[in-house]
Amino acid sequence: MQIYDLIQKTRRKESLSPEEIKFLVNGFTENQIPDYMMSAWLMAVCCQGLTDQETVSLTLAMRDSGECLDLSGIGEITVDKHSTGGIGDKTTLLIAPIVAACGGFVPKMSGRGLGFTGGTIDKLESIPGFSVEMPVPDFIRQVRKIGCAVISQSGNLTPADKKIYALRNLTATVDSIPLICSSIMSKKLALGADCILLDVKCGNGAFMKTPEEAVSLAEAMVRAGNLAGKKCRAMITDMNAPLGHAVGNALEVEEVIYILQGHEENALSDLALELSAHMLELSGKGDLQTCRRMASEAVASGKALEKLGAMIEAQGGDASVTEDTNKLPEAKCKKFFQAETSGYLSGIHSEKVGLACLELGAGKTASRQEIDHSAGIVFLHDIGDQIKQGEILAVIHGSSDSLCEQAESRLREAVRITEQKPEKTSLIYQTVSGIS
Amino acid sequence: MQIYDLIQKTRRKESLSPEEIKFLVNGFTENQIPDYMMSAWLMAVCCQGLTDQETVSLTLAMRDSGECLDLSGIGEITVDKHSTGGIGDKTTLLIAPIVAACGGFVPKMSGRGLGFTGGTIDKLESIPGFSVEMPVPDFIRQVRKIGCAVISQSGNLTPADKKIYALRNLTATVDSIPLICSSIMSKKLALGADCILLDVKCGNGAFMKTPEEAVSLAEAMVRAGNLAGKKCRAMITDMNAPLGHAVGNALEVEEVIYILQGHEENALSDLALELSAHMLELSGKGDLQTCRRMASEAVASGKALEKLGAMIEAQGGDASVTEDTNKLPEAKCKKFFQAETSGYLSGIHSEKVGLACLELGAGKTASRQEIDHSAGIVFLHDIGDQIKQGEILAVIHGSSDSLCEQAESRLREAVRITEQKPEKTSLIYQTVSGIS
Repeated sequence: MQIYDLIQKTRRKESLSPEEIKFLVNGFTENQIPDYMMSAWLMAVCCQGLTDQETVSLTLAMRDSGECLDLSGIGEITVDKHSTGGIGDKTTLLIAPIVAACGGFVPKMSGRGLGFTGGTIDKLESIPGFSVEMPVPDFIRQVRKIGCAVISQSGNLTPADKKIYALRNLTATVDSIPLICSSIMSKKLALGADCILLDVKCGNGAFMKTPEEAVSLAEAMVRAGNLAGKKCRAMITDMNAPLGHAVGNALEVEEVIYILQGHEENALSDLALELSAHMLELSGKGDLQTCRRMASEAVASGKALEKLGAMIEAQGGDASVTEDTNKLPEAKCKKFFQAETSGYLSGIHSEKVGLACLELGAGKTASRQEIDHSAGIVFLHDIGDQIKQGEILAVIHGSSDSLCEQAESRLREAVRITEQKPEKTSLIYQTVSGIS
Repeated sequence: MQIYDLIQKTRRKESLSPEEIKFLVNGFTENQIPDYMMSAWLMAVCCQGLTDQETVSLTLAMRDSGECLDLSGIGEITVDKHSTGGIGDKTTLLIAPIVAACGGFVPKMSGRGLGFTGGTIDKLESIPGFSVEMPVPDFIRQVRKIGCAVISQSGNLTPADKKIYALRNLTATVDSIPLICSSIMSKKLALGADCILLDVKCGNGAFMKTPEEAVSLAEAMVRAGNLAGKKCRAMITDMNAPLGHAVGNALEVEEVIYILQGHEENALSDLALELSAHMLELSGKGDLQTCRRMASEAVASGKALEKLGAMIEAQGGDASVTEDTNKLPEAKCKKFFQAETSGYLSGIHSEKVGLACLELGAGKTASRQEIDHSAGIVFLHDIGDQIKQGEILAVIHGSSDSLCEQAESRLREAVRITEQKPEKTSLIYQTVSGIS
């Protein structure tokens, strides 16, 4: 097998066999195939696409490039969730305790923030004492006992993905459905849960800008999951505005606690309940209606909040934050962001909000490797709310006045106030079901 | 300027400015841009194309990556010719002396064989004593005195092309019209002749398989030449069968001598006269009809043969080969290739003939760096000839019986004899004229 011929084939839209794809993936992972050949192949994939079968072959070859977790020690049907990433997306912190409180089992390995999007692991680390590192046997034990655990990815899982992703990130070959699908699904499959729910974000704050792209990606991922023997489903959800009110690590944990305390009901809590219901249904806990009711009751009864506390405690954190959010880190400076005109709040550009928070210190950048867990923005209004000039729309949290002022001018560009009331849109666009 | 953004732009079919293209070419030539980024960009070009303006910018940036020859010392209008390469293509050895005999000036730097196609430099080296290396001042002096010189490319011409070509050759990014155009034309422009005639080969023995592709490439090259201030024209010519009767270095020189001696008139000699006439016309020697007559007379009068002798002598070779071709190297073994059936000779697959000659030793391969100048194949018939079973169609020249037998079976696959007489096709498909 010659790499040259494989690149040529993809360039000419001729299909590669599973063996040919395995040869490429393993050769690259083992440093037999040089970067310049792999980047040419990746660009050919971006421009010419891959067939469904090739995408599945690529996903499986990447899964098999390293270890695969064996979660059979949990002894129950496990369910994982993956979000393609967005601004203010703290759903993992909600669904893990909700599903666990309903008798589900959620073994979750999460990532850190990437660019302007936040990461669940960074959010959890804003809880005093919380540890995101854990040996796999302890992880399995915790899931069996409590029903959930959220830790940082460890071990030699999908080394092919790490190497390919690094190269894609340097060669403008990131936004390609087959490549995104194989990157996400190879990891999900290696993590070993029985059922996988995918939350595919769509809009200006997501990688997929249009519903059509999001559906294509969702279909590719569900297909790959099914062909690898997993129960798999995807939901296409909106990411044109930040998810929920808070963006920033500790601020998002606080919002999660408010919701689980029953103090806040909004589009975010609705989404979390719907995702939880699908995860429970995939786990075989009942039909969707029953699972929806179970999820709502878990929040209303306080059992989900208890589960969150139990998880925090099991992972070395201060569980009393679930009762007193003042124990979370707090920013030195706060600045009110006021409306310049009256009208309706008709848009909050999530990518711009993400960049504003990044500059405030909520994420890592090339020049700053330390995260300020207290930094971020809290919105006091929802899309569609009527606003008066001078009214406070958001509170900016940062470590200095100058950082807060910088964020304010960014935020000014992100917020749109119009005379006309915007149409109400649903956060959930569509569900893509696979073979159950 | 970020390389990432430039790759992204080309991937999205957004045009790059001349400055952006210069930045890419110079950055890569100076090892500032890593191979894996350049190969991703090259693949994006292959898949998405470049605009005409981008192709010209790329050509000029590559031209300017190294030295450009100053041929003003010749003191006359100079004319260069370039063939995109084929099997049995010895036209340079014909047109240089013909044009020089008519008062034209041909400063020619040629290449060696590449893959299954032969190279003019290898052919010339089959002449005893002939030297293809020469300092530029001597080269200029010879052209001024004799009217022609054919030497091997020297100096630091288009280092960008050398580096880019090496990468393309490893990453399946060879067959792309903008990349082929910029590779050929950057070199031609750096070589400095005033007029350029391009012979774009088309057919199974050429890079361009269809007339449409060949015309696209020709148009791109003529446009680039014109925009760089050169008189430029292209002819699309057939490469579905080997050009002329002989394939192999010394055998091709012999065929050239036969033609210039007036002993052979065939499609090859017709093509050489037509190319010569266009070169003379581009040089301002008269209208095309006049130039055609001049070229024919140069052959008929023996003046072109004299020029060939003068050039061979000036470059240290044994000029007596022009009178006695027995002085050229001769193969140890010769094998007749006989027709297996009767009918009409309707096809000779040039790529297969090229590969047969390569195996005979006529070109370099990965495992053999020495060329056997005497090796090759001489056909005794033209396409369209009526053939009887058992008749000798060709003579195979090689250094051993086993090599000749191997070539025979290859040749068997290349030759097609049919009951039906094939339609006569013209060797010249089309002329692509630029701005004169």
